[in-house]
Amino acid sequence: MPSARRDKLAAVAWSRGRLSILDQTRLPGQIRYLHPKDARAVVAIIRRLAVRGAPAIGVAAGYGLAVEALRLPDERLRHGLARATRRLEQARPTAVNLRYAVERVARHLDRPGLSPGKLRRAVLAEARTIEAEETARSHAMAHHGLAIVPDRADVLTICNTGALAAPGIGTALGVVLQAHESGRRVHVFACETRPLLQGSRLTVFELQRAGVPVTLIVDSAAATVIDRCDLVLVGADRIAANGDTANKVGTKTLALLARAARRPLYVVAPVSTFDPECPDGDHIPIEERSAEEVRRFRSCRIAGPGVRVFNPAFDVTPARLITAFITEQGIIRPGALRRRLASKPERPRPKT
Amino acid sequence: MPSARRDKLAAVAWSRGRLSILDQTRLPGQIRYLHPKDARAVVAIIRRLAVRGAPAIGVAAGYGLAVEALRLPDERLRHGLARATRRLEQARPTAVNLRYAVERVARHLDRPGLSPGKLRRAVLAEARTIEAEETARSHAMAHHGLAIVPDRADVLTICNTGALAAPGIGTALGVVLQAHESGRRVHVFACETRPLLQGSRLTVFELQRAGVPVTLIVDSAAATVIDRCDLVLVGADRIAANGDTANKVGTKTLALLARAARRPLYVVAPVSTFDPECPDGDHIPIEERSAEEVRRFRSCRIAGPGVRVFNPAFDVTPARLITAFITEQGIIRPGALRRRLASKPERPRPKT
Repeated sequence: MPSARRDKLAAVAWSRGRLSILDQTRLPGQIRYLHPKDARAVVAIIRRLAVRGAPAIGVAAGYGLAVEALRLPDERLRHGLARATRRLEQARPTAVNLRYAVERVARHLDRPGLSPGKLRRAVLAEARTIEAEETARSHAMAHHGLAIVPDRADVLTICNTGALAAPGIGTALGVVLQAHESGRRVHVFACETRPLLQGSRLTVFELQRAGVPVTLIVDSAAATVIDRCDLVLVGADRIAANGDTANKVGTKTLALLARAARRPLYVVAPVSTFDPECPDGDHIPIEERSAEEVRRFRSCRIAGPGVRVFNPAFDVTPARLITAFITEQGIIRPGALRRRLASKPERPRPKT
Repeated sequence: MPSARRDKLAAVAWSRGRLSILDQTRLPGQIRYLHPKDARAVVAIIRRLAVRGAPAIGVAAGYGLAVEALRLPDERLRHGLARATRRLEQARPTAVNLRYAVERVARHLDRPGLSPGKLRRAVLAEARTIEAEETARSHAMAHHGLAIVPDRADVLTICNTGALAAPGIGTALGVVLQAHESGRRVHVFACETRPLLQGSRLTVFELQRAGVPVTLIVDSAAATVIDRCDLVLVGADRIAANGDTANKVGTKTLALLARAARRPLYVVAPVSTFDPECPDGDHIPIEERSAEEVRRFRSCRIAGPGVRVFNPAFDVTPARLITAFITEQGIIRPGALRRRLASKPERPRPKT
């Protein structure tokens, strides 16, 4: 696995029959890979955010079925994979990519007459295909995104949406990295992203490694810097049919700030993040996470253990506050979403 | 000094010839008082936010001149106090209460023929008067504020604006505490208030001690809870003549959220926070604080020491987003501000 300081880090990788997942909870201090041996371990890794970012979660979950397939004896293979499918699907509720990926791999269980050996190979091949497709999508998004990043751009972003969140080059941060590689001068204001600080820990880390100038701010300082920014770029965990978008808590605030300051806000996400079965934001399940994430930071206690906390991991940005979606299929305005998605049969479909 | 867990804590107190300042950086874990012996030590205490909150800073600075007066020998009294005046005025740039309090005490230096003993007594008496006036103001504000807090109210607030921030009962949180004492059922959503977490450390602490139900949220979750709130209450560090209000970074965001959700936002502040010489928000100096406040929390490092940070301590909420100001003189709409302040000769005036 890559480990030297300046090497490209992969959030999830399959190599020589082994799954490697970078433990992102340890970044930026430590670069450490996990090697889960069964689906249950992958579920735990996803739940504690050692791997996060909607596309990366999907890829990890696909490989979760692959490690399970390799471990199970023939006689328990189909039954065990079916159980692992249910567990992986429920690991986190908001990102729809997880469900798509798991269902897509699990479809091979429905193929009659497949020998155990062939089933294992089909499961692994499907997981690798998902990774390859997401990687290609991220590069396609990044190239489409070049159209909306001017030279000398100041970009405001939240959470982490680089290669640690989506295989390849990332989603929102992928657009920034691509613009930088294309010779444009880009500077990023990175929201630290409470409570788990993916901005200060991961986005700053990725941008510094890539040589992109970055300034870290507390999330509340976004209201101060928005006037100095040219655009806001964010990722997504689930996009409803009407364009309402669930993303890291704080995104809705950035969208309101952008609207008030007349700056464009783009959601950068592969079509695997769109959920046409979900009519609008009210129907997106929003994960609530542990109070301890807010009450303490690592070993430092901030508030007492008895303090009541409300800790939603995501919020929903209404479609009317989104300038456009940058996808691997191009830039789509919210108003054109339904039509565009309906006309694209190559969009990944969940098993119904 | 009070120290038992349930006693009322005073941010600043003068007792038996000694100044006591509660070290708020240690809360909620430790209740520890500082006893500065000269103005320089008070400046340091104000700078590192051991005492904070615009009215409390003013009171502390007034007493800073008193301890200096008691320490200086007769022959250096006037010269030394003049120097301490300049130092204290510059301890923090945004809160105007600090400048008012210091200038008000320092006016006694201009009285000709005052003996050193009388000057010392006048300085201490003025400092005590400032404390008494701010205490009375906070109770008056809290009572006026009852008019806008319904029974079963959910209140959103940021930073700490209780008795730790303003002698007596506080400003914005004073209104909540008064409503609770008056038998109204009030619940508070407290923004944790990055970077220094005055919300999770101080506001939650004060509300729990008072028995007021409180739910802690990360600042970004305000966009999620605003729909469940009846009103937003915030304090202020300086209010310009046109009503633009500097307060803890994040306040402007709450004001935009409140406007979008059609909820009222009230600024609770004594008239000592109004600066009629400052025409609008563009003229309020906004303090930028150390990058380390964002890069680390206590002993926990979040981002590397080389990471560039922009750390404004305050932001400016435009007057048009403020429903009204709750002052000791009553509730004032932004449009009526100029007229009301001009007609009140008892407003504290800076030395010009």
